[in-house]
Amino acid sequence: MSKILAINAGSSTLKWKLFVMPEEKVIAKGMVDRLGLSDSVFTVKYGDGQKYEITQDIETQDVAVDLLLKKLIEFKIIAEYSEISGIGHRVVAGGEDFKTSALITEASLKRIEELAEYAPLHNPAEAGVIRAFRNILPNVPQVAVFDTSFHTTMPEENYLYSLPLDYYRKYGARKYGAHGTSHRYVSHRAAEMLGKPLEDLKMITMHLGSGVSMTAIKDGKSLDTSMGFTPLAGVTMSTRSGDIDASLVAFLMKKLDIKDPEEMIDILNKKSGIYGISGLSPDMRDLEKTREERPESQLAIDIFVNRLIKYVGSYVAIMGGLDVLVITAGMGEGDILMRQRIGDRLSYFGVEVDPERNNVMAQERIISTDDSKVKVLLVPTNEEVMIARDVMSVGQIK
Amino acid sequence: MSKILAINAGSSTLKWKLFVMPEEKVIAKGMVDRLGLSDSVFTVKYGDGQKYEITQDIETQDVAVDLLLKKLIEFKIIAEYSEISGIGHRVVAGGEDFKTSALITEASLKRIEELAEYAPLHNPAEAGVIRAFRNILPNVPQVAVFDTSFHTTMPEENYLYSLPLDYYRKYGARKYGAHGTSHRYVSHRAAEMLGKPLEDLKMITMHLGSGVSMTAIKDGKSLDTSMGFTPLAGVTMSTRSGDIDASLVAFLMKKLDIKDPEEMIDILNKKSGIYGISGLSPDMRDLEKTREERPESQLAIDIFVNRLIKYVGSYVAIMGGLDVLVITAGMGEGDILMRQRIGDRLSYFGVEVDPERNNVMAQERIISTDDSKVKVLLVPTNEEVMIARDVMSVGQIK
Repeated sequence: MSKILAINAGSSTLKWKLFVMPEEKVIAKGMVDRLGLSDSVFTVKYGDGQKYEITQDIETQDVAVDLLLKKLIEFKIIAEYSEISGIGHRVVAGGEDFKTSALITEASLKRIEELAEYAPLHNPAEAGVIRAFRNILPNVPQVAVFDTSFHTTMPEENYLYSLPLDYYRKYGARKYGAHGTSHRYVSHRAAEMLGKPLEDLKMITMHLGSGVSMTAIKDGKSLDTSMGFTPLAGVTMSTRSGDIDASLVAFLMKKLDIKDPEEMIDILNKKSGIYGISGLSPDMRDLEKTREERPESQLAIDIFVNRLIKYVGSYVAIMGGLDVLVITAGMGEGDILMRQRIGDRLSYFGVEVDPERNNVMAQERIISTDDSKVKVLLVPTNEEVMIARDVMSVGQIK
Repeated sequence: MSKILAINAGSSTLKWKLFVMPEEKVIAKGMVDRLGLSDSVFTVKYGDGQKYEITQDIETQDVAVDLLLKKLIEFKIIAEYSEISGIGHRVVAGGEDFKTSALITEASLKRIEELAEYAPLHNPAEAGVIRAFRNILPNVPQVAVFDTSFHTTMPEENYLYSLPLDYYRKYGARKYGAHGTSHRYVSHRAAEMLGKPLEDLKMITMHLGSGVSMTAIKDGKSLDTSMGFTPLAGVTMSTRSGDIDASLVAFLMKKLDIKDPEEMIDILNKKSGIYGISGLSPDMRDLEKTREERPESQLAIDIFVNRLIKYVGSYVAIMGGLDVLVITAGMGEGDILMRQRIGDRLSYFGVEVDPERNNVMAQERIISTDDSKVKVLLVPTNEEVMIARDVMSVGQIK
């Protein structure tokens, strides 16, 4: 029995789960919100429903990590630090260097920091948390699990843009994709649920969260994915535009009197998507609720579905078929109507979602009819368990 | 019998054809190259193979139009100006105003000039040529035929981007598409060749020229098209990138030390596409010739085909099927191998190109096998005849 911490650090958040492995049982979990800002919120959930919450300024990652570890002892979740056998970290950008999850060494940590130019908000924060754990637990193996690793199998005709090739060779301008850990988890789980080798299935995985991405999986590998050089590209998301005509960047900068292109990209990341179209909310639930009275809410839903459907078609084209469609992540797991819409719009490809079977939230289930040529699966994602598993294997923990 | 001039004016070119209508017979054609620059080249082809060419500075569109008309008389192509019954002009950007070809009035001409912000190089040049003809032939009806009109039937879920809706309402930031006259011509011609009403066919038209665009046509109307707010977006082209992650605009500006976003967009328009990938040429023929010895040439071909295939898939998805695939324009008409590749990669959708039938260049032909579920047609495009026809109908010329 090993206790493994799985960490998901963002620019101002730190989410964690403590697993008992190989049972994959979560014995505690928590979050630091507003990390590095004032009035940070620190929460721990453990035992049989106990919850601890405190609001205090947590100014650095070192403070956050120290607090987390001390509370594990205080609440008797662990008796001493040595019980922690390994720590895993989600890292957003792994570039072309990290084709699999990697043991943290000074060299790999340095490389993660260098890759910050592909994920300026995320990689430095993640590296900071890794360093904080190293300071306190220098002998505990740590493993980085990259959002991009799963997509490093893409062939160059899918990952290269139609740009001067030197932009790739010199600056790494290519498609890296994201959400790889989620796509990896649900694709393996879907194959298990169907009792078939993943290698034999032409599969599309749809991660429908606030970030949305789709992956075409063939021969057990990511063949293509919708996010691009950054998570901005691809389908419509909560606040991200997905694909647009790049010339709009220059056009809108002029119209909006914006001087810094980064500021324009920021609008595309934070003020666009269904939030921008609807003018109401980045949360699909709010649009579902208001779609009958607000045409903009319905429009945002229509555009959202439209882009998903188009990407499915493009992936059917490059895979030469489709056996399995997997839907996951917050919206995908909770929005019954959205799943039905997606299924209905894909009937030409042999997709038939069964309204009865689809009438569930956030549980593993085949939601297509028995006759559906394409099997449609609802598979709640679990990136943390994937991280914990990778810590076990990469860290060679028994 | 009416003589109709069809004009295609670019930023520094003016191409023209003189038609006898309704016979659709071309009795003369010509071009002004390097218009507005030094050493302009003025050519006329007429009669049974006669050709006239002169190199001289042609500084303004007024001078070019005057010269053109005088040469028509001088070479006895017409006896007097009154023989010209109408003049048609290709206009790149018609915005949402022009849903069909439009008679030129002071109001419509002014609107064409105002739409310059959507086509800064083209609309002003085209408007200038229209004014030049009005000066000399004030009583001859002129008709503007827009690249965008055919696409004004797109539903909003296809033409809107996932941007703040105000960017569309205030600034017109939406997908307009292009090559509409070509897509319109070949789709109608294809339906005629198949002896079926266009309205009954789910069709994809591929315009493979130096600009490349694809259109999904359903119920006889453009349902979606690959070019976007400008002709930069969509599939890979000769020198245009097609779709990229918009955040690359900001990233590459930093890397290349570019201050003006327009300069970056210029690179995406002029230095990218198969030219940028291959590092060799924007001409597919050069890549076909060198693909065995130069991996970059093969790579550019692979990426080019990849993007076409993906767009086909996305259009099959939104149409819910595919009956007809039409290939046209310079590369499409001339590159036998490219057409075969496209067909081979689409076999899952029921496309089967017959190598024998496909072994032709630039002629109307069904190139799919008899068993092919999707009919594949090679249809040489003819935008000029479409312009001449629109002059006849819009100008109410008998």
